[in-house]
Amino acid sequence: MRNIKLTIEYDGKRYSGWQRLGDDDKTIQGKIEKVLHQMTNEKIEIIGSGRTDAGTHARGQVANFKTNTEIGLAEMIDFMNRYLPRDIVIKRIEEMPERFHARYNAVGKKYSYYVWNNVIPSAFERNHSFYFPQELDMDKLNAACEKLMGTHDFIGFSALKKSKKSTVRTIDELAIERKGEMLHFTFVGDGFLYKMVRIIMGTLLEIGTGAMPIETIDEIFESKVRQHAGETVPAQGLFLDEVYYRS
Amino acid sequence: MRNIKLTIEYDGKRYSGWQRLGDDDKTIQGKIEKVLHQMTNEKIEIIGSGRTDAGTHARGQVANFKTNTEIGLAEMIDFMNRYLPRDIVIKRIEEMPERFHARYNAVGKKYSYYVWNNVIPSAFERNHSFYFPQELDMDKLNAACEKLMGTHDFIGFSALKKSKKSTVRTIDELAIERKGEMLHFTFVGDGFLYKMVRIIMGTLLEIGTGAMPIETIDEIFESKVRQHAGETVPAQGLFLDEVYYRS
Repeated sequence: MRNIKLTIEYDGKRYSGWQRLGDDDKTIQGKIEKVLHQMTNEKIEIIGSGRTDAGTHARGQVANFKTNTEIGLAEMIDFMNRYLPRDIVIKRIEEMPERFHARYNAVGKKYSYYVWNNVIPSAFERNHSFYFPQELDMDKLNAACEKLMGTHDFIGFSALKKSKKSTVRTIDELAIERKGEMLHFTFVGDGFLYKMVRIIMGTLLEIGTGAMPIETIDEIFESKVRQHAGETVPAQGLFLDEVYYRS
Repeated sequence: MRNIKLTIEYDGKRYSGWQRLGDDDKTIQGKIEKVLHQMTNEKIEIIGSGRTDAGTHARGQVANFKTNTEIGLAEMIDFMNRYLPRDIVIKRIEEMPERFHARYNAVGKKYSYYVWNNVIPSAFERNHSFYFPQELDMDKLNAACEKLMGTHDFIGFSALKKSKKSTVRTIDELAIERKGEMLHFTFVGDGFLYKMVRIIMGTLLEIGTGAMPIETIDEIFESKVRQHAGETVPAQGLFLDEVYYRS
């Protein structure tokens, strides 16, 4: 059987997230599987690198699927982009060894979170950023990013109740760049727990306004109590940029 | 009476254009006047620098209105941005001399047109650019821009049937910049006829693919026959960036 890898871009606004729920048609996975069925006449299940929440976007989600079809790759990507809704685009298609698995083989991910940090809102960025007009102290934000980087148990910064699996993760990069009114936060790490990026973002914003002391981060690493962290910021500012694999 | 100038940003997607038509509520002008009425309890008519078509966007449309209200400017802009739909934003508000008129005093305008020039479409740029996958010859495009600049009778590049007023306009700048898959066309001139930017764009794209010889531009300046120019490209790629006034 052939094993096909897809790199996918989507505007999450209209969708209830990545993961198909029964025969629900409002998920990214569901839309892609439907087109693959049209194309191959096979019942195909695609494996994503992980889920994304309702409203979250992606520039580089990765998924793979097995198929017996003999259709060529160029024809496949054309067919898919022609019949998918215009807010889901297949950016790249590759033939992989049979053992490749988009979730098990992922060794890291890169996310972006965008904050529109100005009193005057934006008519264009409203669906792809979080409008946050309060002033932010960049020195405090940068110091908080420093504290969050490295290897920690992040369960207090997640929406997980309990977990049998390890909740220790490593953040390799947490950087902030300002372009005009827009703050761009970049997260690179070996993996992110459920809602972890959005809860870290909420915590950073409270630290940036001065509402929360920076030491709360250490306290949450110790106490593991999610309630001490900031609010979960809205999904519309979040982008899954890239999924890393060992080459 | 006070004379207030507004600088306005809007995402034109949901609207049938700038100009209010009767009590129609799907125009930018209509939405702004409705909020001004709520704010002042006066029946206010705003004067735009010019119309924009259904689906066209603006980063810097300008309008003015007269009012007897004593509300301060800071309070006005806050009120308006709170009660306007989120895809219309007042970026700036200024008190002007009574003679200022947003349309009569405008001495020039700047427009942008965006072309997504890649076989793979974009999930994010689809509502703010024209997806045009064919290859374009940049040398031909730049030569055509050169030809279009300067002072000409542009009626053949407009959707006007006839005009009693002069249809001579000056294009001071027509430049192309590529950022990755996106081509950004900038138009600066003393004024633009009805659909002129979109018809020039359609002509440029036909020249860029080689479907139309570059000499057709001279021929249209002479013959004034709109049918010889290219198609009118879609409104969603067009942005009114700035309106110029003598200071």
